[in-house]
Amino acid sequence: MASAGDALALPDLAAIRAAQRRITALVHRTPVLTSASVDADVGASLHFKGEHLQKIGAFKARGACNAVFSLDDAEAARGVVTHSSGNHGAALAYAAARRGIPAWVVMPENAPAVKQANVRRFGAQVRLCAPTVAARESACAEVARECGATLIHPFDDPRVIAGQGTAALELVEDLPELDAVIAPCGGGGLLSGTAIAVRAVAPRMQVFGAEPANADDAARSFASGRVETLAPTTTIADGLRTTLSPRTLAALRAGVEGIVTCSEDAIVAAMRMLFERMKQVVEPSGAVPLACLLEHRARFAGLRIGVVLSGGNVGLDRLCWQHA
Amino acid sequence: MASAGDALALPDLAAIRAAQRRITALVHRTPVLTSASVDADVGASLHFKGEHLQKIGAFKARGACNAVFSLDDAEAARGVVTHSSGNHGAALAYAAARRGIPAWVVMPENAPAVKQANVRRFGAQVRLCAPTVAARESACAEVARECGATLIHPFDDPRVIAGQGTAALELVEDLPELDAVIAPCGGGGLLSGTAIAVRAVAPRMQVFGAEPANADDAARSFASGRVETLAPTTTIADGLRTTLSPRTLAALRAGVEGIVTCSEDAIVAAMRMLFERMKQVVEPSGAVPLACLLEHRARFAGLRIGVVLSGGNVGLDRLCWQHA
Repeated sequence: MASAGDALALPDLAAIRAAQRRITALVHRTPVLTSASVDADVGASLHFKGEHLQKIGAFKARGACNAVFSLDDAEAARGVVTHSSGNHGAALAYAAARRGIPAWVVMPENAPAVKQANVRRFGAQVRLCAPTVAARESACAEVARECGATLIHPFDDPRVIAGQGTAALELVEDLPELDAVIAPCGGGGLLSGTAIAVRAVAPRMQVFGAEPANADDAARSFASGRVETLAPTTTIADGLRTTLSPRTLAALRAGVEGIVTCSEDAIVAAMRMLFERMKQVVEPSGAVPLACLLEHRARFAGLRIGVVLSGGNVGLDRLCWQHA
Repeated sequence: MASAGDALALPDLAAIRAAQRRITALVHRTPVLTSASVDADVGASLHFKGEHLQKIGAFKARGACNAVFSLDDAEAARGVVTHSSGNHGAALAYAAARRGIPAWVVMPENAPAVKQANVRRFGAQVRLCAPTVAARESACAEVARECGATLIHPFDDPRVIAGQGTAALELVEDLPELDAVIAPCGGGGLLSGTAIAVRAVAPRMQVFGAEPANADDAARSFASGRVETLAPTTTIADGLRTTLSPRTLAALRAGVEGIVTCSEDAIVAAMRMLFERMKQVVEPSGAVPLACLLEHRARFAGLRIGVVLSGGNVGLDRLCWQHA
């Protein structure tokens, strides 16, 4: 595999298969879920890859484990560091705990207590910083300098992308007859790995990205060929507010058919459908692919589609019970 | 099998196996779910039978299908009737639709619109009545007289009990090494079928019932040997506010080790644990067995326990999103 130092290096199928072997005892081979009633509503045959049932509740465990278990012993002993207020921080903490090495996670000082607790429960150190990109990067650099820890980026790293690609590899192994696979797109790590795995194993299968219309930077970047930025925005799918890197954009341009967008109302409707019909707790970002299928029924009518339910870490502090 | 007319008749293992063959194409063989993190919290090894993933979202589909498909053609043609504002009504509507026969469901006029819709979506007729036991029974009798429809009681019927017992039969087939099985107890149909199946297949395996302390009529009936009534009460587990029948009490006294009770706080904690850790939407009644295990850790420490997650039909009108 090309080194992480090369800004455009991407894993190939062999690297994704190597990742699969490396992480097999560390993560779940997640089940594929179906629902006759959801299929009837969408007008397509959907096969949901349940990454919300993955270790730490999201696919991120795959990439973090592959990166951490790719380090040589000397590197590993000095530990790993990342910045994340979400699932990648918990995933890196989990992977480091499994390898028995130290981990530091830089988080903005306004990160919710529950997200800090998610990292600390695996024994990682939380470093709080001001809630700016500059503060975050300098805090990471400081830990790397002080401790010699290796930075594991949330998505802009071929080892992480290879790990994320193992979810789609399992899906295509289980269901080689799918017409298409759709996965959410934030920084593009999951979608890059998905595109590389699917196109290599099943070239006639199409791969789509899914993102909120309120955070449509990937769709615009895919069209323009440049990494487009995102103006300050609000979307319930807060995990998808990240922009692509040149590396993930290159992977998308090479292997993705298109990026589909959806409204905020469709995201809530999709989450509710997953709750009510399938009894599955899926976070807003994870419901975005189904939301896109609901809003673009004609485009996907009659197809057999793999849908990556990427995570289930809903902040239950934002859910409440109304006593009747 | 003894006829439903005999007030104490119960199915035996052969009847439960016959039910399993009869309904196999009509219901799901539900998966068994596990969670290392929940096990660590409870201090036991739990194997959750996922009946919240069953057709209509609850185990009730099993009993209703067995009853409806046990009718001879002439009986079936005249249709079926029941009273239920909950899962049994939807289950009977589903079973009747699968057999292509009419169904009537008597519901109190104050039943929520969503529950009426759940019955109507399978083509059953809803008959509204005053919210009293007398009005409900006379409305049922009226439909039976007018149409010749067969009454399918929610639990006091050997065919229904045999159907409910198929869930535990599958669980014990999948996991013959369990030490115990725990299931919720309302009218006792599920728990009776569970006790009969488990004790016949695996005599050294213990069976426990679970109910809210706020609706502990089954625990009191089990102790006294008489069907004890329940004073007007409130519990979040509204599906478990039903009292036993002489038939189900006899089954419990013959095959159940004990009835364990839990607080309302434990029910909410158990639901939250199922949501947050296992990403599963389980209704309050379905979370009661886990709530009992959480409140009686010492009693169950170190055991391998099958836990029936009986249903997932949470009223999402009672769940709301707090926008942060």
